[in-house]
Amino acid sequence: MPDENRDSIIVIIDILRASSAICTAFANGASALIPVARVEEAREYKKKGYMVAAERDGFVLDFADFGNSPFNFTRKKVEGKTIVYSTTNGTGIINLSSSSYMTVVGSFLNLSAVIDFLKKTDRDVLLFCAGWKNKFNIEDSICAGAMAEMLLDSGLYSTICDSTLAAIDMWSLAKDDLPAYIEKVAQRTRLRDKGLDDCIDFCISTDFTDKVPYIKDGVLVSGNL
Amino acid sequence: MPDENRDSIIVIIDILRASSAICTAFANGASALIPVARVEEAREYKKKGYMVAAERDGFVLDFADFGNSPFNFTRKKVEGKTIVYSTTNGTGIINLSSSSYMTVVGSFLNLSAVIDFLKKTDRDVLLFCAGWKNKFNIEDSICAGAMAEMLLDSGLYSTICDSTLAAIDMWSLAKDDLPAYIEKVAQRTRLRDKGLDDCIDFCISTDFTDKVPYIKDGVLVSGNL
Repeated sequence: MPDENRDSIIVIIDILRASSAICTAFANGASALIPVARVEEAREYKKKGYMVAAERDGFVLDFADFGNSPFNFTRKKVEGKTIVYSTTNGTGIINLSSSSYMTVVGSFLNLSAVIDFLKKTDRDVLLFCAGWKNKFNIEDSICAGAMAEMLLDSGLYSTICDSTLAAIDMWSLAKDDLPAYIEKVAQRTRLRDKGLDDCIDFCISTDFTDKVPYIKDGVLVSGNL
Repeated sequence: MPDENRDSIIVIIDILRASSAICTAFANGASALIPVARVEEAREYKKKGYMVAAERDGFVLDFADFGNSPFNFTRKKVEGKTIVYSTTNGTGIINLSSSSYMTVVGSFLNLSAVIDFLKKTDRDVLLFCAGWKNKFNIEDSICAGAMAEMLLDSGLYSTICDSTLAAIDMWSLAKDDLPAYIEKVAQRTRLRDKGLDDCIDFCISTDFTDKVPYIKDGVLVSGNL
């Protein structure tokens, strides 16, 4: 991330499925998530006794306790625990965002909570869509569009960014029937091909939790902001 | 460009203003446009007696004959001429596209001609939106959306690309009143601030020409495809 974001709050959006899984983990009482980029790092943590969520390209790694679906992060498994978390896409972005004033995790699951928090901060906001393998995707953009619309509607924010304006337009087309709109996106097909699409309806439901995960000293935590 | 596009046709889209200016030049009878990336290169061509169109950030360079507005490429000036052409954005992308099977220049001004040509080729198509300084912009995306919709409607093409689907959605919102839609884009504001926005209505008008400029041995030409 460029230095221009040093005073901004970055919202990481990777709704299918990393940011939705992270929000679910904290909703169900996880203490902390340690994001790791490399598989070997995750394996080392496992040897030390940590619970590990790790996958590559949608498949759970053999040494891991579970993968990336939000449905894995049940209260029974995660409450009070520190979990090591490795993903194809999300982890690298979490590390990239380290030069911001603050980095939080957003999804439809904590939409209103993220907006309420941002409105209190009086800081520039960068909505960071994770996309897929450095490419644009639709699902993160419509979530960013929903957030941008709420921020602009508050009267506290403005934008001159074409990406933001386009995201709001996409959200305007999607919001009346989100399940139908999401049906066409490429990641839905990828997840379906691997039998991993059972969580999509959950991931596009709003305000499941009021938790706003954020990064503190390289670790994802959640608390009073 | 990655090798995966070696068998594809790339359509370069930079409607405000490079690809519109190039289409206008050939509509008005230019023989060839030599794209150059560096200012010094353009200056050397000028010393050799070439007519030079060159600007940076929207301002005409002091040694150039004219800048980037399509209105500069009048029949009187360009008919039968080879013109050296340097721009902020478009030239680098033309060079980037050299690994494709063929690279053509698209805009609203030659929309139907581009589509008619593509439909004859039976090749994969990559709609390459130039954007602005490596960032997304709205105007190129809606032009790409218009092209993608026409290709899909022909029944000869399909896509699984989220960017393409999003571009079609944006086009669906824009097409009923393109001038009003384009009003909000960032590049319009940039051009207006520099007094360079007089050509926008022209750049979003369709089918001014049936010429499809393409790159041959590093030079832009137009002819029977």
